[in-house]
Amino acid sequence: MEELRNPADDRREDRRDDVVVDAAALAAELAEEHPADIAEALDEEEPEVASAVLASLPRERQVEVLDLPDFDLSSDLIEALPVEEAVRIVSEMSADRAADLFRWMDEPARSHLFARLPPETQAELNRLLSYPEHTAGSLMTTEFVTVPSTWTVGETLRHIREIERTRETIYAIYVLDPVSHKLVKAVTLRRLITGETGQPILSVAPKHDPITVDPLMDREDVARLISKYDLLAVPVVDQHEHVLGIVTVDDMIDAIIEEGTEDAQKFGGMEALDEPYMEIGFFEMLKKRAGWLSILFLGEMLTANAMQHFEDELERAIVLTLFIPLIMSSGGNSGSQATSLIIRALALGEIKLRDWWRVALRELPSGLALGSILAVLGVARITAWQLLGFYDYGEHWLLVAFAVGATLVAIVTFGSLVGSMLPFLLRRLGFDPASASAPFVATFVDVTGLVIYFSVALLILHGTLL
Amino acid sequence: MEELRNPADDRREDRRDDVVVDAAALAAELAEEHPADIAEALDEEEPEVASAVLASLPRERQVEVLDLPDFDLSSDLIEALPVEEAVRIVSEMSADRAADLFRWMDEPARSHLFARLPPETQAELNRLLSYPEHTAGSLMTTEFVTVPSTWTVGETLRHIREIERTRETIYAIYVLDPVSHKLVKAVTLRRLITGETGQPILSVAPKHDPITVDPLMDREDVARLISKYDLLAVPVVDQHEHVLGIVTVDDMIDAIIEEGTEDAQKFGGMEALDEPYMEIGFFEMLKKRAGWLSILFLGEMLTANAMQHFEDELERAIVLTLFIPLIMSSGGNSGSQATSLIIRALALGEIKLRDWWRVALRELPSGLALGSILAVLGVARITAWQLLGFYDYGEHWLLVAFAVGATLVAIVTFGSLVGSMLPFLLRRLGFDPASASAPFVATFVDVTGLVIYFSVALLILHGTLL
Repeated sequence: MEELRNPADDRREDRRDDVVVDAAALAAELAEEHPADIAEALDEEEPEVASAVLASLPRERQVEVLDLPDFDLSSDLIEALPVEEAVRIVSEMSADRAADLFRWMDEPARSHLFARLPPETQAELNRLLSYPEHTAGSLMTTEFVTVPSTWTVGETLRHIREIERTRETIYAIYVLDPVSHKLVKAVTLRRLITGETGQPILSVAPKHDPITVDPLMDREDVARLISKYDLLAVPVVDQHEHVLGIVTVDDMIDAIIEEGTEDAQKFGGMEALDEPYMEIGFFEMLKKRAGWLSILFLGEMLTANAMQHFEDELERAIVLTLFIPLIMSSGGNSGSQATSLIIRALALGEIKLRDWWRVALRELPSGLALGSILAVLGVARITAWQLLGFYDYGEHWLLVAFAVGATLVAIVTFGSLVGSMLPFLLRRLGFDPASASAPFVATFVDVTGLVIYFSVALLILHGTLL
Repeated sequence: MEELRNPADDRREDRRDDVVVDAAALAAELAEEHPADIAEALDEEEPEVASAVLASLPRERQVEVLDLPDFDLSSDLIEALPVEEAVRIVSEMSADRAADLFRWMDEPARSHLFARLPPETQAELNRLLSYPEHTAGSLMTTEFVTVPSTWTVGETLRHIREIERTRETIYAIYVLDPVSHKLVKAVTLRRLITGETGQPILSVAPKHDPITVDPLMDREDVARLISKYDLLAVPVVDQHEHVLGIVTVDDMIDAIIEEGTEDAQKFGGMEALDEPYMEIGFFEMLKKRAGWLSILFLGEMLTANAMQHFEDELERAIVLTLFIPLIMSSGGNSGSQATSLIIRALALGEIKLRDWWRVALRELPSGLALGSILAVLGVARITAWQLLGFYDYGEHWLLVAFAVGATLVAIVTFGSLVGSMLPFLLRRLGFDPASASAPFVATFVDVTGLVIYFSVALLILHGTLL
């Protein structure tokens, strides 16, 4: 049998014989397990053992395992299988999973396998692969149930029984106009089985129009719709109201979790890893972290410029430097709070781009209030240290305390405003609001914060310390 | 008719007549809409209009709207309804939603309504309300389908047709031992309808044991299971393998999104809001933000202590102060990256508590590599400014650059290690790892970072600048 991968050296061939024995035993053991558990077991084996086990599993089980949406090994396993086997399995897999497989497979195995697929499967896969990542089109599958609106409940049920095996879900049935093939209604299986066999299918349809999505809709928006309407699947339709495919709820859960991970990593100040932490290569991870870290570092260099600019003041009033870290971090922290609030609210659709001024009107008083709280704490700290004799801030200590307090109010207000407005600005410019990471906001606020601090200090301490 | 709320003043009664007319019209308009859209429309009305509209909707539609998992208004609306109406609706609602309703309702309306419910509904609600928040038990509903394992496919189908209306989902059917009532298998509706009517129900059951959860399992773990096995519902069983209820996939989606929001807000350095940003009260929000902000501020005050401690060095080498913000932020940023990676990996179950040393072994070289990159940038910056004449760092500028570079390597490595270990430590101590927020890590690294900076500088510049 021909292999997709070039046959390895002889040593590997020798090892293979041992592997086959183990694999058959393991396959027999796993055959009755839930596909997700089989996948987990395969994940723990060496790649060649895993592919041998897969090859020894019952046909039906092979397809079920590879059909799992979060089974990362699938492309490696398919590549390791004899090509006839691979073709058979891919043809039986659900279309969305098969498309994922081809997204992940390496050349030349990818083209090699693709060329051997039946023409109609090729056409279907090409269509699915043409949609940009993270859109409804790229997530959808083409195995759904449609019936003409002229059918009865009984006819529909009979049809579903026949085709059940080949469909991703049969819990939603799409009723089409018999002539135009436009989507008329979406019927749930639960309503269908309670209907009278002789009645028309439309008798069990809901009154409202079906909820549909556009193939280019972002997966976050699809998730919001599925969650809002508690759907098990949502049809993807083109501008002529023809159903192109469906996105099912299990794909959505994976998408929501993935989206959450990406957002969390971006907010942490790095590129999204796209792979589990323990599985991503060391240099791959370094690359995703070093980029942002360096950009932030370059941005933060401006703080050195700012400090150089105020060098004279620094030398005259060294006491001011003592509070630089405290003041800078307070601006960064309040900015980080505001940013995380707004990124999440934008992601959930709680607020829209046009709400920016409402948010600004909330953050302005919030920032003033939070800044005042910190100012009180800060002034109390300086006063206490001075009066208790822990440290001597000089004869103008009260003015210094006042300068620190006033700066805190200004900088926390500024941080809250900048932190809350940045996600809006990024979305407006077409970027992901989640890129307004905590470190990004902190860097931005740090530089301006220093300028604010020295300006306020100059104003208050002019003629005394400065 | 008696009302749950004390009747308001006459003016309100007068207004009510107008409201009734509008409400009836709006209700007629909305009656054919999807329940989620009706809920959205009600959300935009004044509370009294909304409750009047709800009262005018068809009975079935009322229950559907209140059954929506994320309909926040439901408790207010139920409180505003005449008590007989409220009792009828609550009895028809799904048990998990009704339990939510009682979680949200205010006294005395809550007890008043509860007392009038049928005893069996009271018992059921009391049981559901007894489970702690965010557990499988608190999320489950008790309307599920069970059949004895002695039944045939045909009997089961007939039974489902009869009871469909009263069940949250009929897509999973739980097959029980006829004597012990223990859970034997879980059958999907799709396999059921493809079975032969005369065959036993077990003929369409999968070979593997049913996937079950414990009532006290955390919702994050339930979500992981539902996602792993692509389930539409998972049964909650007690230690005797009796089914207590089921958690459905739509509840899980809401739980995952909520969990993501909480984690994002905690990571941003505040308490989770628990309410949408635009809806939470101003002082409520302030409270959730001020707490952490003040704690972080108090922690960051230690930077002032550290600076005071190195006051002599500061005065002798003012040039060192120029790089304090740059160095501190680099430590914080690398810590924030590491923390966001580990929090997420822990939340997804990609890594376990016992993996801490593997993570440490990855973060140590990552930190060294990332720190070296920043060190090169930092030294290049100082050299460039010096040689190009932008700024004069003094005769020992090369040593200063070297001190800054060495500190960057040390502090980024330290930041990565602390940032990655903190979530483990928090989980070990029983806290939520997500509390290791970006600001928290930054504060921790800031204080130690200053000490590292001055120690390294003392070591390198001793005898020259210091």
